[in-house]
Amino acid sequence: MLTGNTTLLLHLGDPTHSFKAPMIYNPWFDHAGIDARVVPLGMRSTEFGTGFEIVMKATNVRGALVTMPHKVTVLDLVDEVRPTAAIAGAANAVRVEADGRLVADMFDGEGFVRGMLGNGRMPQGASALVVGSGGVGSAIAASLAAAGVSRLAVYDTRVEAMEGLAERLRRHYPQLQVETGGNDPAGFEVVVNGTPLGMNPGDPMPVEISRLDPGSFVGEVVMTHRVTPFLGAARERGCATQVGTDMLFEQIPAYLEFFGFDPVPTPAQLREHATIAG
Amino acid sequence: MLTGNTTLLLHLGDPTHSFKAPMIYNPWFDHAGIDARVVPLGMRSTEFGTGFEIVMKATNVRGALVTMPHKVTVLDLVDEVRPTAAIAGAANAVRVEADGRLVADMFDGEGFVRGMLGNGRMPQGASALVVGSGGVGSAIAASLAAAGVSRLAVYDTRVEAMEGLAERLRRHYPQLQVETGGNDPAGFEVVVNGTPLGMNPGDPMPVEISRLDPGSFVGEVVMTHRVTPFLGAARERGCATQVGTDMLFEQIPAYLEFFGFDPVPTPAQLREHATIAG
Repeated sequence: MLTGNTTLLLHLGDPTHSFKAPMIYNPWFDHAGIDARVVPLGMRSTEFGTGFEIVMKATNVRGALVTMPHKVTVLDLVDEVRPTAAIAGAANAVRVEADGRLVADMFDGEGFVRGMLGNGRMPQGASALVVGSGGVGSAIAASLAAAGVSRLAVYDTRVEAMEGLAERLRRHYPQLQVETGGNDPAGFEVVVNGTPLGMNPGDPMPVEISRLDPGSFVGEVVMTHRVTPFLGAARERGCATQVGTDMLFEQIPAYLEFFGFDPVPTPAQLREHATIAG
Repeated sequence: MLTGNTTLLLHLGDPTHSFKAPMIYNPWFDHAGIDARVVPLGMRSTEFGTGFEIVMKATNVRGALVTMPHKVTVLDLVDEVRPTAAIAGAANAVRVEADGRLVADMFDGEGFVRGMLGNGRMPQGASALVVGSGGVGSAIAASLAAAGVSRLAVYDTRVEAMEGLAERLRRHYPQLQVETGGNDPAGFEVVVNGTPLGMNPGDPMPVEISRLDPGSFVGEVVMTHRVTPFLGAARERGCATQVGTDMLFEQIPAYLEFFGFDPVPTPAQLREHATIAG
């Protein structure tokens, strides 16, 4: 029950129609007896620069879930950018501190890494290829680096985005072997599609399937299908896979910790109460 | 269930803790299958000037319920002020039109008049005394004028507020007999306390009880008690009375019509589903 005492997390993006977070967070808050609500607020880019700072000052707002098209621009509107968000060049969560300071972080990649762990794959010392150097691909690369992979290849047809990400990774993780230049998945223990390829019929595969190592762990950010053509092909190769919505459910406990909610659910508990499929 | 498709009415004020509207509107929306939510947003005066216009541009916001301390300042931030709000010098509802224009109106007084009608008292041709020329007192005076009272006395110890209200009433309703200068209730068919008197123990009565006509209809805006000392004394005199929360429940159908929701409930239907007492 939403009242004047309820703590709000504003879900900021445009358009709002495909937002999934309210249907995952809010049933959990109800179940756990936490007086909080995720509230979608459809803020256009033209209003975001001024509007973001204003709504973050609202007395009942603890923070924001930030989504398209604001994940990059929000970095210029906060007081502190956590390393993963800095490397990703984007943030999807902003917390209001007690003194009003705004702290931004990025959990898309953390969700991916937690999903790996849940599937029994340890990132420490592993080799990984992340195809796509946009917001979510960069976030996954940043979280894999933070989780201790030893070799990390990033690839994007937009060379500037790819090289920029590689440069930020090298700066923050000088011990990490960072590679750019190709999307050949051969020899990588972890292979991730961080591009939109697979959302539309007829999209090409993000990597050459015949070069996938059957022992690889393969992940995906596209959520339009539970099992995308890429994941389907990887499974046929014998690969273990992680679907796009896993990343979503896996990252929410990290978000809830970041915002200081207690208790923090497991992804399974979130799924149990969510009013959308996952 | 709040989703990215849900229409929002932002409830703007500071502090938010005593807000009642969410607990009345939202259970009704759920019951009626209307995909809408009243969402409290605690906006301080320092942010309201800029923030109001920004949040009214959000893609999923249809309007705002405006409360303390913004009811007066909001008039300068909208494109159109309806007559009742103009006379009251305050608004408590702002609707976003299809073209983005903002229209402000004031329903506190409409709630009082509807309550009168529900109690079988016709305002047409009646004489009325409204004590208190602040936001809510002015709103009640404006709505009584719109509803057709023929004689209207307004009173406030703050002479400027009282005379300003009287002047606006005379300008909008040249046929209406408008009086100022005293709070003697003798001879008035309708007597309203539109002041905060009665919120605190030991407050004086807003009018001299012994001068109340037992046939008068007596109303109250204070909601801290269901039956305030003033209403209790009026009942002992034999007067019919309207409690403060009646005004609240009576005005909500008017609000919902203003915002274009359908179906519009009766106050009794609102009370049946509300999660606060009324």
